[in-house]
Amino acid sequence: MTIIDIIEKKKHHEKLTEPELSFVITGMLDGSIADYQISALLMAIVLNGMDLEETIALTKVMLNSGDKIDLSPISGIIVDKHSTGGVGDKVTLVLGPLLAALGVKVAKMSGRGLGHTGGTIDKLESIPGYQVALREDEFIKQVNDIGIAVISQTGNIAPADKKLYALRDVTGTVDSIPLIASSIMSKKLASGADIIFIDVKVGKGALMKDLESAEALAQTMIEIGKRFDKTVICLLTNMNEPLGCAVGNALEVKESMDALKGYGPVDLMELVIEIAALVLNKTEKMDMEEARALCLKKINNGEAYQKFEQLVNSQHGDLKGLTVSDHIISVTTPKAGYIKSIDALRIGEIARELGAGRFKKTDAIDYAVGLVLTHKVGDYVEVNDELLKVYFNEKNVSLNEILSCFEISMDDSTKEPLIYKILS
Amino acid sequence: MTIIDIIEKKKHHEKLTEPELSFVITGMLDGSIADYQISALLMAIVLNGMDLEETIALTKVMLNSGDKIDLSPISGIIVDKHSTGGVGDKVTLVLGPLLAALGVKVAKMSGRGLGHTGGTIDKLESIPGYQVALREDEFIKQVNDIGIAVISQTGNIAPADKKLYALRDVTGTVDSIPLIASSIMSKKLASGADIIFIDVKVGKGALMKDLESAEALAQTMIEIGKRFDKTVICLLTNMNEPLGCAVGNALEVKESMDALKGYGPVDLMELVIEIAALVLNKTEKMDMEEARALCLKKINNGEAYQKFEQLVNSQHGDLKGLTVSDHIISVTTPKAGYIKSIDALRIGEIARELGAGRFKKTDAIDYAVGLVLTHKVGDYVEVNDELLKVYFNEKNVSLNEILSCFEISMDDSTKEPLIYKILS
Repeated sequence: MTIIDIIEKKKHHEKLTEPELSFVITGMLDGSIADYQISALLMAIVLNGMDLEETIALTKVMLNSGDKIDLSPISGIIVDKHSTGGVGDKVTLVLGPLLAALGVKVAKMSGRGLGHTGGTIDKLESIPGYQVALREDEFIKQVNDIGIAVISQTGNIAPADKKLYALRDVTGTVDSIPLIASSIMSKKLASGADIIFIDVKVGKGALMKDLESAEALAQTMIEIGKRFDKTVICLLTNMNEPLGCAVGNALEVKESMDALKGYGPVDLMELVIEIAALVLNKTEKMDMEEARALCLKKINNGEAYQKFEQLVNSQHGDLKGLTVSDHIISVTTPKAGYIKSIDALRIGEIARELGAGRFKKTDAIDYAVGLVLTHKVGDYVEVNDELLKVYFNEKNVSLNEILSCFEISMDDSTKEPLIYKILS
Repeated sequence: MTIIDIIEKKKHHEKLTEPELSFVITGMLDGSIADYQISALLMAIVLNGMDLEETIALTKVMLNSGDKIDLSPISGIIVDKHSTGGVGDKVTLVLGPLLAALGVKVAKMSGRGLGHTGGTIDKLESIPGYQVALREDEFIKQVNDIGIAVISQTGNIAPADKKLYALRDVTGTVDSIPLIASSIMSKKLASGADIIFIDVKVGKGALMKDLESAEALAQTMIEIGKRFDKTVICLLTNMNEPLGCAVGNALEVKESMDALKGYGPVDLMELVIEIAALVLNKTEKMDMEEARALCLKKINNGEAYQKFEQLVNSQHGDLKGLTVSDHIISVTTPKAGYIKSIDALRIGEIARELGAGRFKKTDAIDYAVGLVLTHKVGDYVEVNDELLKVYFNEKNVSLNEILSCFEISMDDSTKEPLIYKILS
């Protein structure tokens, strides 16, 4: 078996076997196969595809390339949640405490920001003192004690995926359903949860540009889950605007705290409650209407917010220290009409330029900066109405760039739904 | 412009422009674009193709990446000849002196062996003392003086092609008509000849597996030639067996000397005389029948062979020193029948294993070893008839492997022609 033979096979539309994929991944990690050979194979996979069997085999090989977290010392059903990359996506910060308040175990390992999308770990680090690194035994103890822990990825989870992803990112080989599905699932399977929710973002700024490909990705991940005896539930959600209003680390934590108290943006509330209700429906066979009502109750009676405080305290965070910049500018619209779309990709990039994200892995983040939308898609705005507020510090940004994120027209055709579809 | 944008374009079946291809090649040579990015682009080109305009642009960019040989100090029409890689292909060694004897100028830069195919320069180096490296002025003077010089590539010809080819060789991205055409043509255009003959080998062991793709490659190269005001003539020739009988450096030189004296193998004689006649037809408007007769005359009266001796003497070679191994084994057939095919690829590989070729660039060649076919495709053999002789030294080879190169059956259906087609 040589890497050239394997590349030739995929180039000629042939199926790769698990031993062949294992040869590729092992060789990539030990350096016996060069990056330029891996990237040629990746492009052949992007263009010629992989079927479900191949995708499952690649997932397995990547899963086995590193550590697997053993969550068996945690009693009860453990839920994990992943998003394919949203802007303003603070669902974990709201959903996690809500689920814990509902008695569901949340043992969550999150990542840092990638490109124009923020990362839960960066957001939590905007709370001074919050410890994102716990030892595995501390992590498990905290979940058993208070029902929730949110930490940065521990151990050596799917190192093959890490290396492959870095290469895909610089070789134009990101957009492949088998590669995306195996990347997500290898990490999620290694993280040990029983039920995995995956929020597949759909839209111009998302990895999946249309509902059809998002559905294909979802079905692939669900099938992979079945093969590993895990329940995978996919929500296909609208990314034609950022989720909620706040984009930027401390700003998003503040918005999450508002949501946990019951007054978050409508779309964020809807998504969080829908996922939480689905969890109850799946684990306790609770009726969806009843489950939604129970979620709202846990929010309205303060238990969800208390869980958040418990989480932060337990990981040594100090919420009083949470700071947003006091340099604020208000951006107003030169044009009246209905907001048709808000380019989430560009909004994410602008936040990054302000300092909320990284361009290089070593860049420091300015937790206090970002943007807060005053209006969302479907709203009607008059000339000079405020569209958003910019929270900035050292780095500035062009107003024109911000305005160009908004598509405004007099056409008031119906707004797209937030949740397109739920698949499992 | 970024390399990722360019990769994405080709991935999405879009055309690349000359400035984009120039950006790629410049970046590859100065190191600002990584090999893993180039190889992803190469795979996208292999799978999604390039049209004629793109192929011409890539040829131009690669041609301009290095030196161009100025042959204008040589009077008369200068002919160059290239083969896409044959086994036992010693055409240059026979055709060159014949053309020179016919008064045509042969200013030939040749290469070393690549993979399982031999190289003219390695073959000439089996003649003790033969100097393959001449300065450009010496090279031009020799062509003007005696009508022929055959040297190794001088200067920095198409360095972009050199780098690209090395990468294609290890990433499964060799078999692409636009990449093959631009690779060959960038080097041939840089070498300065007026008329370029390209022998496109067709068959199982050749780069082009079928006549249809060989014809497409030929048409592409002819069109590129037109754009640069050069006459390109392509011969599509059969590679279902090695050319001639000898495979291996000194053995091939000996066979070439026989051919120059008029008693070479039928297929080698046919191909050499056909190309030489075409040159006369093209340059002097000579009728093909008359031209073939003139070629035979130059062989039969000894002038062609004398030209070969003049070439070797002029480049300090000593023909008396030419040696083949005296360890010879005869391989006989266990089966009677007609020889249907002789796997040229495997024969080339066996010769390489014997020491006639290199596995690594730094390997030394054993000039004295190789194989000489006793029978060719179409011949009828009885059990125990000799199929070939193996000339070996230190390295041995399995008889079974040799026998498996021969397809022998009782079916005597017609033999394929040597020259399928001539295109210009």
